[in-house]
Amino acid sequence: MSARVLERLGEIGALVDPVMEKYLLRGASPEFQDAVLYQVRMGGKRVRPALTIASTLAVGGKEENALPAAAAVELAHNYSLILDDIIDHSELRRGKPTVWKKYGISTAILIAVHYRESITEALNDTPEPPVFHAIMAETIKLLTDGERLDILFEQSGRSDEPYVVEQRYRAVRLDDYLRMIERKTAKLIETSCVFGALSAGQRGEILEALREYGYNLGMAFQVGDDIIDIFGEEEKTGKRVGGDIKEHKLGNVVVLLALEETRDKERLLAILRKEDVSWEEVKEAISIISETNAREKAEVLRRDYVSRALKALEKLPRSEYRDMLEELAVFIEKREF
Amino acid sequence: MSARVLERLGEIGALVDPVMEKYLLRGASPEFQDAVLYQVRMGGKRVRPALTIASTLAVGGKEENALPAAAAVELAHNYSLILDDIIDHSELRRGKPTVWKKYGISTAILIAVHYRESITEALNDTPEPPVFHAIMAETIKLLTDGERLDILFEQSGRSDEPYVVEQRYRAVRLDDYLRMIERKTAKLIETSCVFGALSAGQRGEILEALREYGYNLGMAFQVGDDIIDIFGEEEKTGKRVGGDIKEHKLGNVVVLLALEETRDKERLLAILRKEDVSWEEVKEAISIISETNAREKAEVLRRDYVSRALKALEKLPRSEYRDMLEELAVFIEKREF
Repeated sequence: MSARVLERLGEIGALVDPVMEKYLLRGASPEFQDAVLYQVRMGGKRVRPALTIASTLAVGGKEENALPAAAAVELAHNYSLILDDIIDHSELRRGKPTVWKKYGISTAILIAVHYRESITEALNDTPEPPVFHAIMAETIKLLTDGERLDILFEQSGRSDEPYVVEQRYRAVRLDDYLRMIERKTAKLIETSCVFGALSAGQRGEILEALREYGYNLGMAFQVGDDIIDIFGEEEKTGKRVGGDIKEHKLGNVVVLLALEETRDKERLLAILRKEDVSWEEVKEAISIISETNAREKAEVLRRDYVSRALKALEKLPRSEYRDMLEELAVFIEKREF
Repeated sequence: MSARVLERLGEIGALVDPVMEKYLLRGASPEFQDAVLYQVRMGGKRVRPALTIASTLAVGGKEENALPAAAAVELAHNYSLILDDIIDHSELRRGKPTVWKKYGISTAILIAVHYRESITEALNDTPEPPVFHAIMAETIKLLTDGERLDILFEQSGRSDEPYVVEQRYRAVRLDDYLRMIERKTAKLIETSCVFGALSAGQRGEILEALREYGYNLGMAFQVGDDIIDIFGEEEKTGKRVGGDIKEHKLGNVVVLLALEETRDKERLLAILRKEDVSWEEVKEAISIISETNAREKAEVLRRDYVSRALKALEKLPRSEYRDMLEELAVFIEKREF
């Protein structure tokens, strides 16, 4: 399976770069502009706007009518990254300092607020602003709830955060996990596709087909992320394996499934609950996980979501853009980075 | 001058409480609801929504048509308070723990994000969503810029914030200050009045009159806040005087005007620039300021803005609601808390 589809989608997605910058620069004082543009100029695969544009083209829409909505979903993604990096104390993203690390936390918060307003400005240029605004508000509320759950699934840390300490989950079931990733990841990817349909003036079956495609693609994407976090090859991903274990996350499906069957459950949980998890312990945890069928089960889960995504696509007319959406799903089923 | 107008406005403003809660509860998981409602349930004078409602009633509109916009401006105000308290490390507001202090910083950020989406939901229920959305986006971007400037006017602190350290103002002129409060304070108050006009279907002269009223009222309000911060009576305000000095703020008009004429400029600046300002030093700074004409000059500034606000009101037809707006301006000219 090649990553060529990613390249083609990346080219389509890159169309939103000047559009995002136009909205971001609106109302930004000269001495604030570099700070505002930093996050979107760090790069990124632009998968979400590419989905909006490919979706609209697949159902008879025009690229230019979808650009504001496509810019909005990518801005929403970057908005959440700026805030997640603050929340998770992450200092690096794509090998560069995160926004808060580079500018300071107060400035990063102000930048994030500015991003959110740029989303509103972009959505006001869509064919039906109130419809797009309502969907975006619902999407970001769900994203927030997904992030909240992801934090509450952590097994240690944040001792200075009373809400997290009180509400933390001691156990996470598969359906808790699915609810979390549905919100944290799948919803915005679903919305990216829905925006493509709406920008083409589509409702009804076509809209629902793209929604279903986006939802299942998003779920498969996150399950894949979890698999890669534990079993990825560092030369391919550029990241150390086991980051989720180091961050005490029970919100990783591989960890979750391993806990269900391993005889070393207590030890695995003990590692996740250590205040400071060493890389040695991460390695031990991965070795415990490797002795279970967690990886295979997660692969089955990912494959199921991809099948559903592909099935939803069958309701669209054949076109090169439908092929592209299809290839993306197939790529996500196998991706290793 | 009595504060009775505040009471009457408070009653009108309180009409938005159930409306705000309706939007805030939308999409809030059960175990997140208390946290989401905490900020708006801490109280507040509800001046901004009262302005929206009184403005709409003063120009022939109906209360119920203005409620979504009124809820939106009060949500925007509370959104900015949640974030400002994080940015300023403030632990108390109205005698209660601030949101981040009570729930932790990550949760506070998620709550703030949830507030912003509730604003979108409220604005989608106004008579002309795209117009209201555009104004709110512009307003919040300006608010952000005002907060940025306020931080950059601080003379010490935030050594861990690279952007602030690099961009900090060494001197602040009166026009820098006016630009800052125009954005930080006046714009949202202006928007509150503009939303009242728009909710009544008003454009043209009536809209512009309410815009001018709101802008000048907001400017007078912030100048008053600055005067009270330095010269307030603690029994009336419930706060220690000189908080702005303790926080190194050159963005207080009284401090700014005092610096222009005092012979103790170096000492006053030295106090503002100390890493830790003691209450003893705050007292010393206030005594330096008291020897200048800064207070009188600030009073003149405040009076001028109030005059302009009152003049703008003359363009509206006489009504009990115009009277109320007038009384509020007169109250703000003299307020001591």
